[in-house]
Formats: sequence, C-alpha cells, structure tokens
Amino acid sequence: MTDSFWNAEREARVRDSFARQGMMATLGATLEKVAPGAVEIALRPAPAISQQNGFVHGGAIGAIADSAAGYATLSLLPLDTAVLTTEFKINLIAPAVGERIVARGEVVKAGKTLTIAQSRVIAESGGQEKLIALLVATMMAIRNRDGLAG
Amino acid sequence: MTDSFWNAEREARVRDSFARQGMMATLGATLEKVAPGAVEIALRPAPAISQQNGFVHGGAIGAIADSAAGYATLSLLPLDTAVLTTEFKINLIAPAVGERIVARGEVVKAGKTLTIAQSRVIAESGGQEKLIALLVATMMAIRNRDGLAG
Amino acid sequence: MTDSFWNAEREARVRDSFARQGMMATLGATLEKVAPGAVEIALRPAPAISQQNGFVHGGAIGAIADSAAGYATLSLLPLDTAVLTTEFKINLIAPAVGERIVARGEVVKAGKTLTIAQSRVIAESGGQEKLIALLVATMMAIRNRDGLAG
Amino acid sequence: MTDSFWNAEREARVRDSFARQGMMATLGATLEKVAPGAVEIALRPAPAISQQNGFVHGGAIGAIADSAAGYATLSLLPLDTAVLTTEFKINLIAPAVGERIVARGEVVKAGKTLTIAQSRVIAESGGQEKLIALLVATMMAIRNRDGLAG
Repeated sequence: MTDSFWNAEREARVRDSFARQGMMATLGATLEKVAPGAVEIALRPAPAISQQNGFVHGGAIGAIADSAAGYATLSLLPLDTAVLTTEFKINLIAPAVGERIVARGEVVKAGKTLTIAQSRVIAESGGQEKLIALLVATMMAIRNRDGLAG
Repeated sequence: MTDSFWNAEREARVRDSFARQGMMATLGATLEKVAPGAVEIALRPAPAISQQNGFVHGGAIGAIADSAAGYATLSLLPLDTAVLTTEFKINLIAPAVGERIVARGEVVKAGKTLTIAQSRVIAESGGQEKLIALLVATMMAIRNRDGLAG
Repeated sequence: MTDSFWNAEREARVRDSFARQGMMATLGATLEKVAPGAVEIALRPAPAISQQNGFVHGGAIGAIADSAAGYATLSLLPLDTAVLTTEFKINLIAPAVGERIVARGEVVKAGKTLTIAQSRVIAESGGQEKLIALLVATMMAIRNRDGLAG
Repeated sequence: MTDSFWNAEREARVRDSFARQGMMATLGATLEKVAPGAVEIALRPAPAISQQNGFVHGGAIGAIADSAAGYATLSLLPLDTAVLTTEFKINLIAPAVGERIVARGEVVKAGKTLTIAQSRVIAESGGQEKLIALLVATMMAIRNRDGLAG
C-alpha cells in the first residue's frame, strides 16, 4: 500500500460508514483502528448485550466481527464501491467475558467481486488477551448502485 | 413428542431464558412461537439495528437466527441441561428490509452432546414472505454446570 | 419452470460436466437424478474413500455434496454460464456408513451472480434413510470466460 | 510443548492413522510434516481429482484441508483419544492449479471436547506460493470408544 493509495479520504469513508451503522451505537461498539486492510472494533460487556447466562451474546460478537471484517474489506475498495456481507461463519471458542471485547478484522484475499476477510475476536481481562471467536466471511463489492454507500 | 414430554415447564424454560437475554430486548426482538424443536423470533427494522445503508444489520439477523436455533435445541433438552452455540454460519441472501423479520429455528438433528439446528429468516412485506437468510449452527449441551441455566 | 425452460440440452449439460469431473469417477460417484434445481449424486462406501476408522471420509462426503449443490445451481443457469463454488460449510452429523450414500442438492435461492444451494446427505441401510450431513454453499455464476465450461 | 509431551509415539500415531485413510491414497495425498499442533498434507493436480474445468476439485481440497486440521488436532490429544470432524467450512479463494497443493493445518484453540483448527491451502507454481483456500473446522475428541482409533 502506497501513501497515495491510503489517504484521509479512505479512512474517512470507513469512519463515516461506521457512524451510520445504528447497530454499532446500539451495541455500544467503538471503532478503534482503521488501517489499510485491517480494522478493529471494540465493545464492553453489559447486560444490554448479554445472552441468558450473562456472557456477551454470540450475535453481538458476530455483529462486531462481521463489521470489522467488512470495513477491513471496504478500506481496500475503490471509492465508488460499496461492500455487503454475503456470508459469515463464526466459531465461538470461549465465553465472551472480560473488561473489553475486540474484533480484529483483516483481509485474507482481496478480489474484484468477492473478498475473503476474517476477524479474530479477543477478550481482555486483567491485562491478558484470550481468543474467544474466529469469523471468516465473504464480502461482495457492489459498484455504482444507487442508495448503497460504503 | 408426547404430551408428557412437552409440557408447560419446558415452554416456560425457553420463555424465561429468552427474557434473560438482554440482547433480545436491545434489538426489540420478540419470542413468537415455542414448540418442541421449533422456535420463532421476530424483530422490526429500525435505525437502531441498521447497517450503513439502512438495511437491518447482518449481526442483528445473526443474533435472532442464532437464538431461534438455540431455543429450538433447548426445547428438546433435559431440564438440567443448558445450551451454548459453538459455531454458526449464516448466508445473507437478500437485503433485510420489510415490515417484520422472522427467524424460524428448527432442530435438524438432535444429539446427546451436539445438536445441529438451522434458522430460515424471512422478511414480511405487503403480505409477502421472502427468504433473506439461512443459518446452520452447532449447539452444545452443557450438563450440571454452576451458573449456566438454559 | 416451464417445459420450454427445462429441456434435453440443459440436462445434457449437467451430465456432460459431471462426466468431466475426474474426481467423481475416482470416488465411484454416480449421477442419479437431474431435475431443474435439484440433483442427486450417490456413492458406495469402500476402503478407497475411507477415513481412518473405515467410515466414508468427510472429504468424499463434501465432494459429492458440493457437486450436487453445484449442479443443482448449474441446471438453472443460462447455457453460456459456468458455475464455481466459492465456499461451502458441511456439518457431519453422523458417521457415513451404510450401503449407499446419497447427496441431494437443491437451490435455496438463485441469484444473478451468487446462488445459495444446499445438499442433504443421507445414508441408506437396510431400507432406512438416515441424515448424515448438511452442506450449504455459495455458488458463483461465471459468464463468457474462455476455458470455463459448465 | 515439552519434549516429554511430544515424542515418537505421538508422531507415529498420526502417521499410522494417515496410512489408514484410504481416501488420502486415492487422492495421491502425502503427509509432509507432523509437528505438535501443525500438520501438512500435499497432493499433485491430476485428472483423477479434477472438476469439470481441470482445476483440482473443491472436494479434494476440502479432504486434505480437513485431514490436515484433524491431524493437527490429534497430535495434541491424549493417546487414548480419537478425533472426528463435526463441521468444516472452506472458502475456495482461487482456482487450484499449480505443481503442488499443500494444506497446512494448525490448531487455533485446543479444548477438552472441542478443538478449533484451521488449514491454509496454498498452490505452488514456479517457486511461488498462492493462497487458494481457507478451512476452519470443529474437531471433537472421542474417548474410550471401541472401534475408533486416532
């Protein structure tokens, strides 16, 4: 990635799109890092996003992991191109407990139409990190369609 | 399923567990149907659960589809046994738009330790139903563990 | 599907493509049924396709389930369009033992670029059928590309 | 991993189990590396394992990727414990062409009952490596069951 490729406009697009995802605000999720092909999203465990035993709900983990992978993909796409998730699989490896949950999205293989991206989700607790989930997704680039932005 | 198997106590367990999922309340999701091996959960599209283009976020779809599959599984498990999702894959087939989104979870194959369950997610619009997502999950039965209920 | 859509040419394309899959012959797999959006492929358990305990190898199950889903998709595509699997997930539900294994592929949702297809895999034993695996795949239509047929 | 954990007996178990997989011999697959939590399996493209366009069939890629992930898991399990794949998802990223295809399996998270393992599959061509597939699987440890070895 050259400096001329990665610029303020590209980063701004990811941040603008994230700000439009009502779901992220509802989950209390925050955009922590935006770099070419790598995006991090975090949230803090809370009753509002829990499953029945008080762990963070798998759906909330899936949501930030999906968004992190999607924005990692978007960061590499042309500015006239939007991205949609066509499928994701998530392995929930350990209960989502801790002080903070971070989804680290990255592009595995960028393609013209389809991009494969993954997110490793870790839980921070007492200064330690623990892998709690792994998501692999297929992202689809959508060009020139009215009403689809980022 | 005999009447002696399926009873008020089993249905109540699913309803109680659903009520403890803070995530479902946060999404505005409602438990629509509870039957042996089949559970429906619905939500209404709203800005609070949207992605960047105003569709319902794939993570919200994943959350209700995961819960519907999980509760379909729980409905068949012994009363001293809890359930955890170990993995799910979701294919997002069409944009989640419409008046109401319904995840219909059902058990594909019940097992002693692992159960395979799926959810078909449909969008209702103008009296029509459209398939928008398909989830297949592996659910794990957890016996006799403190702190895990339903 | 009208008769004018489904004709001998479409069925022949699927049969010709199957005949070109060296992998199917190597597994001893046979094309049992070709209908619009629904294709069945069978194989017989044998040491040549076993895993370490004598069950049919999950990779062989995956191969016929993938091909059945792919050909179900191809049966609905224009004659100038080929199909490639972009991803599949398979849940291996029960050991693959019995007299015959049959993968029943069907289209879940046909799309212009991406089609979602699934295969239910059953084992026949003593006149009984048992579900042993469930595959869900994303198939991609490829138009007008040299060297890609069916 | 200490030397006292990883020893000739453990490596021999993986090699013996691989030798019992008739499917691997049928595909022409070879066991290239066995280390604690990491196993490599290779095959050479050939008409006998092709799909309709002459690429290696996705099912063959899935088979070696599944076995590599399974043996990476088995390498860490107690000697009285066998392993079965409960599910895998594979993203087929690029056509499987080249001189040699290698599946590199590794354990993502080892657990008492379930282990998450992945395989990255690369194609070698003209001294270059290209990522062509990514598999993530759930492996189940089976203890003390007659008839199941390795």
